[in-house]
This record gives sequence, structure tokens and C-alpha cells, in this order.
Amino acid sequence: MEAVRLQKILQETCLLVPDRPIVVGVSGGADSLCLLDSLHRLDYPLWVAHFDHGLRPESAEDARAVARIAQEMRLKFVMGSGDVRAMAAQAGLSLEEAARKARYHFLFEQARACQAQAVAVAHTANDQVETVLMHLLRGAGLNGLRGMSTRAILPEWDAQIPLVRPLLEIWREETEAWCAVHQLTPLRDPTNWDTTFFRNRLRHELIPYLQSYNPNVKEVIWRMTQVLGGDWEVLAGEVERAWQRCWLRDGPHWSVLHLTQVQDLPDGLQRAVLRRAVDRLRPGLRDIDFGLVERAVNWLREPASGHWLELAAGLQVWAEEGRLYITENHQLPQEWPQIGPKEVLLTVPGEVRLEQGWTLRAERRARRGNPERGQLVAAGGGRVLLELSVELNPQALVLPLIVRALRPGERLTPLGMGGHHMKLSDFFVNCKLPQRARAGWPLVISGTEIAWVTGLRLGEKFKVNATDLEVICLELVQG
Amino acid sequence: MEAVRLQKILQETCLLVPDRPIVVGVSGGADSLCLLDSLHRLDYPLWVAHFDHGLRPESAEDARAVARIAQEMRLKFVMGSGDVRAMAAQAGLSLEEAARKARYHFLFEQARACQAQAVAVAHTANDQVETVLMHLLRGAGLNGLRGMSTRAILPEWDAQIPLVRPLLEIWREETEAWCAVHQLTPLRDPTNWDTTFFRNRLRHELIPYLQSYNPNVKEVIWRMTQVLGGDWEVLAGEVERAWQRCWLRDGPHWSVLHLTQVQDLPDGLQRAVLRRAVDRLRPGLRDIDFGLVERAVNWLREPASGHWLELAAGLQVWAEEGRLYITENHQLPQEWPQIGPKEVLLTVPGEVRLEQGWTLRAERRARRGNPERGQLVAAGGGRVLLELSVELNPQALVLPLIVRALRPGERLTPLGMGGHHMKLSDFFVNCKLPQRARAGWPLVISGTEIAWVTGLRLGEKFKVNATDLEVICLELVQG
Repeated sequence: MEAVRLQKILQETCLLVPDRPIVVGVSGGADSLCLLDSLHRLDYPLWVAHFDHGLRPESAEDARAVARIAQEMRLKFVMGSGDVRAMAAQAGLSLEEAARKARYHFLFEQARACQAQAVAVAHTANDQVETVLMHLLRGAGLNGLRGMSTRAILPEWDAQIPLVRPLLEIWREETEAWCAVHQLTPLRDPTNWDTTFFRNRLRHELIPYLQSYNPNVKEVIWRMTQVLGGDWEVLAGEVERAWQRCWLRDGPHWSVLHLTQVQDLPDGLQRAVLRRAVDRLRPGLRDIDFGLVERAVNWLREPASGHWLELAAGLQVWAEEGRLYITENHQLPQEWPQIGPKEVLLTVPGEVRLEQGWTLRAERRARRGNPERGQLVAAGGGRVLLELSVELNPQALVLPLIVRALRPGERLTPLGMGGHHMKLSDFFVNCKLPQRARAGWPLVISGTEIAWVTGLRLGEKFKVNATDLEVICLELVQG
Repeated sequence: MEAVRLQKILQETCLLVPDRPIVVGVSGGADSLCLLDSLHRLDYPLWVAHFDHGLRPESAEDARAVARIAQEMRLKFVMGSGDVRAMAAQAGLSLEEAARKARYHFLFEQARACQAQAVAVAHTANDQVETVLMHLLRGAGLNGLRGMSTRAILPEWDAQIPLVRPLLEIWREETEAWCAVHQLTPLRDPTNWDTTFFRNRLRHELIPYLQSYNPNVKEVIWRMTQVLGGDWEVLAGEVERAWQRCWLRDGPHWSVLHLTQVQDLPDGLQRAVLRRAVDRLRPGLRDIDFGLVERAVNWLREPASGHWLELAAGLQVWAEEGRLYITENHQLPQEWPQIGPKEVLLTVPGEVRLEQGWTLRAERRARRGNPERGQLVAAGGGRVLLELSVELNPQALVLPLIVRALRPGERLTPLGMGGHHMKLSDFFVNCKLPQRARAGWPLVISGTEIAWVTGLRLGEKFKVNATDLEVICLELVQG
């Protein structure tokens, strides 16, 4: 390992500056001692951080050994510990996963405490190859196959402080050689707690076995991670642009996307955009996301409006009026004016509270003119134009008015259609009113006739004449 | 295997139409019998094509068996054969590679002969997984890891007729089940010639071994190919756009790219653009292209103008005046006017043949006015503005003129610089004349002074006065 090469990585890829602290995770093995020693020789201000996972009897002794090394280098030493076995049992995690979580939690806590510029860990090219093989065996896309990054912000741990891995281009043999040259004595296999059965077997069996197919298999896979990392970056840029085009709104239990924009994307970007929406509702949902996203991509070719597509993990997809909803527990945004199954009387003056924060008001007043139109209700992206205020002919009305939802087969004689009447259900379709808003849509009834399909259309008979001086005004108010 | 699913793949992914022939490659194994039988049941017009690789004693018997099957189905049967062993030895290929080449050559020959809409082969999901693992072990990027395509134009075989692989989503077990249900008797392991040591070992040893890590490893890898295929498509679109921005011109031994456009690309696209340029000069250069492209990407960060970067396989990179050249055998485009080491006399009237198709002409004529400027010479993308015709003062000239290249330390008094003189080498730098064009750049000499740096600048002393009626006109003509 050449110091010049490392220096270049530290400056140009890890973006480390000489004058702000770095928290270095040091297990005491050859990799982390090499990292610590080389950073120290380059005069970076370091905090040596060791986490005692308490998984092996000699772990406390290891911690003392690392403390001694820090002391010899005159560096600040911090130690953390936790009952990883209990944590694993409690959170239903593998020992390895629990150990990882506890360790990173500790490292980033220290980093925040000392306002560090970065947390540095000693993953090597070998670790990179092992990680990628693990991803491959467990199922991965480009993001998994590109392996770990030399510098990354991981929001799971901290939104600002990056995790840097300066040794990702360095092979384990090189860190061991470094230790030998600089007379550092690595602890005997201190990271073995980390190599659970799967990773250990992979390291000691699978890779040597693969070398019987190609002696350079490690180098070949490492190179692959480099190339795929570049490809991934390009793709991530495209995904971001696609997301910006498709995304409309997030709610607590749903995201709304622009349906045709999503459909127009190539499959790869459709998957990525859907995965991003799924990630928001189910962060870290890795193992089942292929089938889940695939189902949604297939369904998107001909989405059935008004029908749920059940995905998995309590997630669904819903299409409606040019919008695509990714939901959990069938929760859709519902912001339309709605009314329950009961009839309600509306006096003049008077008002009726509707659902979703809407109110219907009636008053008698002088005629002013045309209804107040033109406001687009943004309910989950719906695009129905509502008349928020209308004037009705008092002579035509039977008071008090009744407000209720539609009845089966109910008909309407809409204003401006030459007295023709039509089924209210057809009228709703013509208005592009989402199906789920129809059953509870409030109607203002005069006697037995529909005087106003709230917000949508007057009945022909109730229109105001040019000679009327006084009108009954109905108003739909939100909020 | 459901017929409906296959029908969908045939129509929607393979884009097959019912009324144009399809050449089906049939070895006689379960996979190809299943493909043949299912296509036949769907009434596609088929040609059964069998290639006898002559690698096993029973291969002629296999061919007869396939012919019988075709006859029973009342389908046209065509057979090819070749001495694959000799071809492999002659072309320095592996047996597997030689067999593949011979077979596809035959299949596409038949396809052209019968104006087929496609060549269909019976690769299954198992083949896909094996192929991807093989690529992984030998080193691959996204293009290798995505595996084979269900439909692809392979210019190596034909520029129009696609190769389709309708069974890529079907597992080998399914094709065997199909054969059992439809009472087809596959030949015993007829493709074994194809499973050379590497692939055979991979199928019978590696995959079962990997299943001990994850029993679903085959499915997991197959899914990966699906996802990566989508990612690759997105990336390919980006690469095409990047290429359009960067590419300037191709020559027989070089491609010219726009240097800063290439530098401005993210690493992933830089690699892809360079790989595309490399591919053109060295098609199929797979194994060494990672290091090769990587070296070029690193060099691009600070390209040394006027110095070759040696890649490999006889390829080089060269940067010059905002242009990036990918060359073989150091061959750069040279289209500038150039002259050899000897002096040449230029009489008036008269002409001198220069190199690269240029001619220098002199004549005496009436004064017309300003020199003819404004033509940008596209030589390999160079951007020097040439004066193609100038007028000189006959009184100032010593005839005959001499045309030659520069001498060490030679100086010039350029027109319009108030009589100051400067080194010709500095003048060339100011003109942004590529270094390699300088040593052979033709100068027109009057006595011992530079009268015209051809195409670039008159000497101050030789300018025409407003009172001159007659001038000596020098003209630079290309082609």
C-alpha cells in the first residue's frame, strides 16, 4: 500500500480535510490498525473508537489493547459496549446485524459529540468482494452489486456526517504487510464475531472455490464494483429526474404519482420510481421488493381504475383519474366533500357540516351574477372543477332543503342540457369524479328533485332568471 | 409452462408475426424440442435448422433424429455441418466458441435464405443464470450481468434479422415437463458438446454449491438479470445521448471526441463513451478492456497535450486543442497543409504541391482587396482559421519565392503588430496550431524573410498598399 495512493483517496474521494476530527472505528485487527496508523502518520486529528460487542470472552482484553495503542499514539480513545445478543433477540435481528447497528450507532454518536468531519472504517477490497457476493447470493440489483461506497452519507446514522472507507481499494494482504512493516501487532482475528457463519463460509470456502474457476476472481469482482458504481451514479441521476417528473405529493400513508408520466418511463426507471415510493412507506424492505415492484410494473401496463392491486407488506397500488397511488392499508387521500348515509336539513339561512372539512351554507341575498367557479380542488391530485358558490331561484325551491347522498338510479336534469335528464351516475362519470367519491357526494334536494349536485351542477329548473332580484345562495366552503 | 404466457412473450417481447418464417435452431434436446413443438402448435411457419458440429460420434444419428421430428411435423428441415475442431484450431478459439460461431453462421444463413423474420433458439432461464455466472467469474459490467436478451439484433450475424430466445423465462424443468406431457422424446444430452469443461462444471458443481448458501440462488440471479436488463436499457439511452454530445468524427484508425464534453461526463458515461470508441477499433476486445478504459478515464482528468497515452492492444489516446483522439498505431488524422524537409521554389505564376492534398499557387493580378478568410479547416476537429488567399506587395518580394518548413529559432514580423517580431514557435502557439502540425508547416520565404506563414499570417513588410494596382496573389487550395 503506497502512502501517496492512500493520501489521494483520502483527499479526493473521502474529501477529508486536515483540521477537523475523524472518528476511526478500530477493532484492533490488521485492517483497522493499518487505517489508524496511516491516518495518524498523515497527521489527521483522530478519535480512536472501539466498540466491545461482548460476544467473546476475550473482548474486554481486546478493548484494553486498542486503548493502549491509542495511548501510545497519544490519541483520544473512546469505547462503547452493549449486550448485542440481547439486542438481537429483542429486535429479531441476526447477531451480525445487531452488532453492526450497535457499533455504527456508537461511532456516529461519538462523531456528533466531537463534531467530526467523518467516521472512518477499515473495510478493504476483500470486504467489498465478500459483500457483493453476499448481495448476489441473497438477490440484488445494481445498488447491491456496486458494493460499498468510499464516501457516503447514510441517513440511517447521520444526515450530515459521512462514513468513509479509505481502504476499499486496498487488499487485506496489503494491510497485513503494512502492519508488519510498521511493527504493529494486530489482535488475533478480533473481527471474527462479525464473520457469522454466512460471511465466514463465504470468505473461507466460496471465494477459494470460485478461484478454482478463475484465479483472479477477487480482482474481477472488485473491478466490477468499480464499473457498476459508475453506472449506478449515472442511473441515480436519471432516477432523480424521473422522480421529479412523476412525483406529485406524499401523505402519511400514501404517495401520489402522475400515472402517465410513470407509464411513459422505461421499465428500469418505472421500477426505480416505484421502489422509491415503496421505500418511503416501508424503509429497508429489501428481500421482497423485487416481486412487489415487479407486480406493480406489470399492472401499470393496464391499470384497473377503481381496483386495488395488493402488493405485499400491507402495501397497495391504486389508479384514479391520471394519478397513481402507492398506499399502505388502503389509505387514500380523501379530500372531497362527502356526506354520511343520513339525510340532513339545510335551512335558509343555515349550514350543514360535511365530511373532510367542508361546510355547505345557504343564505338569501341579492342577485350578483355567475357562480364562483374556477377553483381546482387538489384532493390527491384530482382535477374536478368545482363551483364553490351558486345562486338558485327562490320561487323554484321547496324549503327547507335536504342534503344527502345519491339513491340508486337517481336522475338529474342538469343546467344547460336543454331539459334532458340523465342518470346521476353517468353525470359523475362525465365529470371525471373519482369513483370512491361518488357514493358519499352531497346533493342538495328540493322536494324530490336535485337542486344542486354540490360543487358540480345546478338542476335546470332552479336556475336564476335575469329578472330575479333576490336569490338563494349556496356556498361550499373548505377548512 | 403455460401456452398463454409463451404466446405473450412471442408476440410482445419477441415481436413475432404469424405469417413470416422463423428459423428454429433445434439440437434435439428437451429445450429445443419444447420450443419447436410449442411454436408449431401456435402455427408459426417454421424452418427446423440443425447444425452437426461433428464433435461426437453419434452426432450424425442426432441429426437424422431431428430430421425425422421435422418430417413428422411436416416442417422444412435444413442441416449444416462443419469441422468445428479444425475451425477452433485455425482461429485460436475454444471448441465452444468455434461451435457457437459455426452454428450461428449457419442459422443466419438459413434465415436470410428463407427471408425469415427471426432466428429462434431455446436458451432457458437456466442458461441465463449460467451465462451470467460465467460473465461474473470472467469479469463483466452491467451489459454482461444482464445476461442474454429475449430479442436482439446481433450485427455480428445479421443487421436486420433478430435472434429471439422465447424460453429465457422458462426453467429447464418446465421444458422437460412439456416434452413429457406432449410425448416428445428428447435426445440424450445432445448439447453436451456445448458444455465444455467450464460451463459443465458451473452447471453441475457451482450452482448446486451456491444453492447451499441460498436454495433460491437460481431464481435470485434470474431476477437480477431482469432488473439489470431494465437498468441497462436506461443507461444505454444515456450513453447514446452522451455519445452524440461527444463524438466528432471517425477515421480509419482513429475517432475524435470533444475533449471537454467527455471530461464533463460522470465516470460511468466516460467509461461507456471510451469503450464505444475502443469497440470500434477493436471489436470484441473484452478481457482487457477494464484496465484499458480505466487508464484512459484516469488520464482524462489531466490529459497531457502532445503526449501519447499507451493503452493496450495497440491503442492510444491523444489530446489536442480541445479534441480527444482514440487511435491505433499512433495514427492521427493529418489534414493540415504540410511540406517535407526540402525547400521548393515557387515561381509567379506557378504552384507547389504540398502534402495532405494541399496546393500553393502564386499569380500576378490586379488588386481586389482583403484576403479570403473565414474558412474553418475541420482537420480532425482542429479549429484554426485559415486565410486561403492573400495579396502581397510585388515591390517587396524577392522572386522566385521559396517554400519550406521552419528553421530553429526562426522569427516573424507578423502583419498588424506594429513591426514587432516574434518567434515563429510562439506565433504557432498563439494560433492554437496543433504541435504536430508545426514542424512541417509551409512558409513562403522572400529572400531570407517570411512573407507568408501559409494560411495564417502575412509578414508586415509584404502587405499591399492602397496605391498598388497590381499584386502577387498566393492561394492555398485543398483537394
